[in-house]
Amino acid sequence: MKAEIITIGDEILIGQVVDTNSAWLGQELNPLGWDITRITTISDQADEIKNAISDSSKRADMVIVTGGLGPTKDDVTKKTLCEHFGVELVFDETAYKNVERIFNFLKRPVTQVNKDQALIPANAKALHNNFGTAPGLWIEHDNTILVVLPGVPYEMKDIMTNEVFPRIMHLSGDVVAHRTLVVSGMPESVISEKIEQIEINLPTGIKLAYLPNYSVVRLRITGKGSNEEEINQLLNKTVVEIKAILGQFVVSDTDRRIEEIVGELLATKNKTASFAESCTGGYVAHLVTSVPGSSAYFPGSVVTYSYENKTDVLGVDADLLWNKGAVSQEVVEKMATSVRIKNATDYGLAISGIAGPSGGTKDKPVGTVWMAVSDINGVQSVEYHLRGDRKQNIERSGNLALEMLRKRVNEAD
Amino acid sequence: MKAEIITIGDEILIGQVVDTNSAWLGQELNPLGWDITRITTISDQADEIKNAISDSSKRADMVIVTGGLGPTKDDVTKKTLCEHFGVELVFDETAYKNVERIFNFLKRPVTQVNKDQALIPANAKALHNNFGTAPGLWIEHDNTILVVLPGVPYEMKDIMTNEVFPRIMHLSGDVVAHRTLVVSGMPESVISEKIEQIEINLPTGIKLAYLPNYSVVRLRITGKGSNEEEINQLLNKTVVEIKAILGQFVVSDTDRRIEEIVGELLATKNKTASFAESCTGGYVAHLVTSVPGSSAYFPGSVVTYSYENKTDVLGVDADLLWNKGAVSQEVVEKMATSVRIKNATDYGLAISGIAGPSGGTKDKPVGTVWMAVSDINGVQSVEYHLRGDRKQNIERSGNLALEMLRKRVNEAD
Repeated sequence: MKAEIITIGDEILIGQVVDTNSAWLGQELNPLGWDITRITTISDQADEIKNAISDSSKRADMVIVTGGLGPTKDDVTKKTLCEHFGVELVFDETAYKNVERIFNFLKRPVTQVNKDQALIPANAKALHNNFGTAPGLWIEHDNTILVVLPGVPYEMKDIMTNEVFPRIMHLSGDVVAHRTLVVSGMPESVISEKIEQIEINLPTGIKLAYLPNYSVVRLRITGKGSNEEEINQLLNKTVVEIKAILGQFVVSDTDRRIEEIVGELLATKNKTASFAESCTGGYVAHLVTSVPGSSAYFPGSVVTYSYENKTDVLGVDADLLWNKGAVSQEVVEKMATSVRIKNATDYGLAISGIAGPSGGTKDKPVGTVWMAVSDINGVQSVEYHLRGDRKQNIERSGNLALEMLRKRVNEAD
Repeated sequence: MKAEIITIGDEILIGQVVDTNSAWLGQELNPLGWDITRITTISDQADEIKNAISDSSKRADMVIVTGGLGPTKDDVTKKTLCEHFGVELVFDETAYKNVERIFNFLKRPVTQVNKDQALIPANAKALHNNFGTAPGLWIEHDNTILVVLPGVPYEMKDIMTNEVFPRIMHLSGDVVAHRTLVVSGMPESVISEKIEQIEINLPTGIKLAYLPNYSVVRLRITGKGSNEEEINQLLNKTVVEIKAILGQFVVSDTDRRIEEIVGELLATKNKTASFAESCTGGYVAHLVTSVPGSSAYFPGSVVTYSYENKTDVLGVDADLLWNKGAVSQEVVEKMATSVRIKNATDYGLAISGIAGPSGGTKDKPVGTVWMAVSDINGVQSVEYHLRGDRKQNIERSGNLALEMLRKRVNEAD
């Protein structure tokens, strides 16, 4: 079964917000056997909306429209749907009860703008919205299902989960399954040469894709067909073949981020880690604590941004800082060892660099980053020269540092 | 001038990655007078690519295609372009020199797969790629410009900036300008009622849009026309009218994130702040240090994740922790005051909560978050009950805490 997504919103077209709704819809619908074959983002102009819905409806079994259902005047979707289908807006009692419920909870009076949220096209069924006043809409027309949802992510997800998935579960016969191998320390083109024969001989129904990001490349292997058991056998066989060739460069055989991989490794080995961050400014701690259960291996960390803070909190020698600079092997090694001892953890990880845009010098240009891992056996450090903007340098440093920690934890007894 | 973006990639359709390239293109092209009228995401199937390029070329003056130019076998774009235009792939000497340059830098031999990167459709001009081996492509056909770029964000941005923008600058006559007002503490529907008369009477060429996110609503006012001065006058007049009605709820009249607003406020007042984070796990420090120049008002902070760490690092009484719990008014106030004194900053901001999915109790369910701001005059605290998942609870807590800090700094003498 094919589904298309139409996202309505000038804010996406001018780049003020990033469309994360479509990614979530893809993740959720794919395992239910639905192929998302196209995502279209358009402005909130009536003509654009009509054309997009009309085109998508010809190609897909289901069209999901997000955005343009809020209470304000820039939201034109409902009116446009009425014009498109030649129906009127009608008052929906159940949708209105929901508006009242939410305003009672907020202890605010219901305004006229909010009352209008309960008006829906006459050919639509209202879908209950737990978290907002705008109901979702379900319209069946010419063998296509049209689902219209608010653009606010948690409202959209709530309506999909509770109202849409139960209605569409049974519609698709196909099974789709994925495997992902996370490969670290080997560039895409080298991987491609090494597994060329496997790729050429992939069984029917099995596809392979490369997703490079920072220091890792994800290999996504997708299987599709009617027989679930057969698909899984083919996927498992392909995984085994690739792992046999790439060996220890495969750091995970599920699609996990580096903070999940290193977290599981620490938990499995019953070890703990703490961080001393300068240029990454808390990003590494943020990544690690984004993983549920991280308190098992992460008691705490410090962000030491100024020279004084590095001296006061981590005991980095002030002379060393002024002579070698904060972005130096000596300082980052001291930071790693000091935070490990201070927090009584098995590992200490430190990062100090120049994220940019300013702060670079001829000797140490923007993108110079030192990182170190300390454990009971000593301290290791490495220097990188990155070439991104501030955001990229922070994110890349964080990922590289966690990969450095992963290697050290993995190699330990 | 109208532009459309076509993004090629199964990884976006199945939701494995979020399309951030399109947002960047929108941000950059819009001020140059180009309207992005549609973004289409499709899979890397030849038919899909041909249809999408053909449809977009009919509607737009320029079509930008991203993705599908990497060195691996899953990239089919170039072959498809040749079929579409009825041309052959030809070897481009300049593009090959670039491949060699990059492999010399990496001290690796050039493989056949990489050599093939220098093959381009005969009707295309190669666009130099500073950061990768795949050249961009520039094709003029039937009065439409077709620009084809790699999907890797920093490669795409580099080629657009250095090769494409200079070629298209002069093509558009229209001027587009935006103003954004950031409104905090007032829901979208209330704003809408308050400024209804302004919205009804907006001058021709001026549009207003609402962008709610976490604790703030952004009002984006867009002006478009041939006379730059006139547009700016109309925009400024609208901004003044809205600010007169919404008053102090307008916390910024440029489109800035809360960490930028609070950072500027601290810098202007020559004040400093440090943070003690529990449930947000470094996210607040990450937000604040993502702003260039943040070292002027941020010397450092701590993430205290465990009970022991809160006691060791911040001197939170162990009895207090065990009696009241880490997520309590008493503990969060102590954390805020302690981190302020410890880091010798003017303000101390602390957050302690239950981000989920586990850790909730009947008395303190997931989403319970305490936050406190301390300064020389004392400490203020507030409790929130959020209802998102772990990621949302962390992000929302971080934004709410920074807004709390902003208010306190703003109200101080």
